[in-house]
Amino acid sequence: MVPVLGVLNISDRASAGVYADEPGQACIALLREWLATPFEVDYRVVPDEIDLIAAELIRQADVAGCCLIVTTGGTGPAPRDVTPEATLRVIQREMPGFGELMRAASLKYVPTAILSRQTAGIRGRTLIVNLPGRPKSIRENLEAVFPAIPYCIDLMGGPRLETNEPLMKAFRPKA
Amino acid sequence: MVPVLGVLNISDRASAGVYADEPGQACIALLREWLATPFEVDYRVVPDEIDLIAAELIRQADVAGCCLIVTTGGTGPAPRDVTPEATLRVIQREMPGFGELMRAASLKYVPTAILSRQTAGIRGRTLIVNLPGRPKSIRENLEAVFPAIPYCIDLMGGPRLETNEPLMKAFRPKA
Amino acid sequence: MVPVLGVLNISDRASAGVYADEPGQACIALLREWLATPFEVDYRVVPDEIDLIAAELIRQADVAGCCLIVTTGGTGPAPRDVTPEATLRVIQREMPGFGELMRAASLKYVPTAILSRQTAGIRGRTLIVNLPGRPKSIRENLEAVFPAIPYCIDLMGGPRLETNEPLMKAFRPKA
Repeated sequence: MVPVLGVLNISDRASAGVYADEPGQACIALLREWLATPFEVDYRVVPDEIDLIAAELIRQADVAGCCLIVTTGGTGPAPRDVTPEATLRVIQREMPGFGELMRAASLKYVPTAILSRQTAGIRGRTLIVNLPGRPKSIRENLEAVFPAIPYCIDLMGGPRLETNEPLMKAFRPKA
Repeated sequence: MVPVLGVLNISDRASAGVYADEPGQACIALLREWLATPFEVDYRVVPDEIDLIAAELIRQADVAGCCLIVTTGGTGPAPRDVTPEATLRVIQREMPGFGELMRAASLKYVPTAILSRQTAGIRGRTLIVNLPGRPKSIRENLEAVFPAIPYCIDLMGGPRLETNEPLMKAFRPKA
Repeated sequence: MVPVLGVLNISDRASAGVYADEPGQACIALLREWLATPFEVDYRVVPDEIDLIAAELIRQADVAGCCLIVTTGGTGPAPRDVTPEATLRVIQREMPGFGELMRAASLKYVPTAILSRQTAGIRGRTLIVNLPGRPKSIRENLEAVFPAIPYCIDLMGGPRLETNEPLMKAFRPKA
């Protein structure tokens, strides 16, 4: 069975069709660049509404059967930014190391990296990772944590994902 | 309208008048040193009681209309230290990057930096940031995160705060 | 009164006697190597069941009177890994700096360090610290945070622990 990866763009403007969905496409492009294993994409755009975000994450995890969901947008301090809260609502176990490392990686570029409230966690057999909303930041953030994602999915009992070396090298400890 | 900044010193001894309130005064002095925009200070001292701390944070945020509240004290592991718990009770959205960066900054000086349980978060249009209790540590901690605070308040729809360069330089990404 | 230190190995296989308990013994060996103060060990092995882990942590804290409990195992993303959730259930106040620093320390060795969901926190007068399950990682992790532990226990009103310098140096700020 082909692995399914979820991409969820969370944006009032993109969901209203006001502007082109660059962040969602940037996520898909990165997954295609870095993964050698063929996969399908379950792709959606939702507005910054906690109930809608949570419902979509649950559908991508439980119905579409995604082993990984990356969200983009809604992680900042603006009043409408509620992606981390929606994520915390649907995960059963948090993975604080993802947010810590992504913020530390972004801090090399901008001191406002600490304003990103992004987190990650596990729902059933699905890893959910929050990414920021700007394509440049998406790459910087996902690049920092991606080497650990295939082994994480191994441990969760999911499909084996191989990467396109040398563009991206997954790390798997020797048994 | 002049921005209002809240300073809340959380200390059994200071609130009982047993010793002079150096930490609270240190916070106010730093804000005056670093901010060029005129502002008013809403300043209080409360004992290490979770209900009293929470009530004061709510008043400073909702009634006094502070765009920023800095707390000092009560972030350690001593039995009376409950400032982070009071903060978590009143905020709607946590900002984990503040505590992470402040601890990392303090770790350059002392290995006991990890004992500070400080956090930050948003209540309505108010950013609340926990600082430690010792004046020297207050400066080290606030200095680490302050460059991100004016832009955070911009994103929250609050007043524009300008800093006194070169003493403190706020970072605002180009649109 | 001799201080009591708790060691809790959380492992389905070790609790079933399927393999020797290396991680638990590694924890005990490190405590004996680094601490000069005589102490007793309260040592248990439990399977990866959240209720059993929580019950054992409560017993070690409240009945055995441990000033420190180190757990080993169950911190990863595998479906049975629930040690952080059991810890969060029994502590009253979280200490996020421990997990942050241990993950940062492990990141020097492996990019999969971010998969460790370990945390720490306080229950009454007991400090609980989650460690990973592999003896090599246990040392790397505990070594990073141990310099802060004796002073933490001082602040919590616990027994004074002296370390075996130069193998391990506790840090206590001058008053």
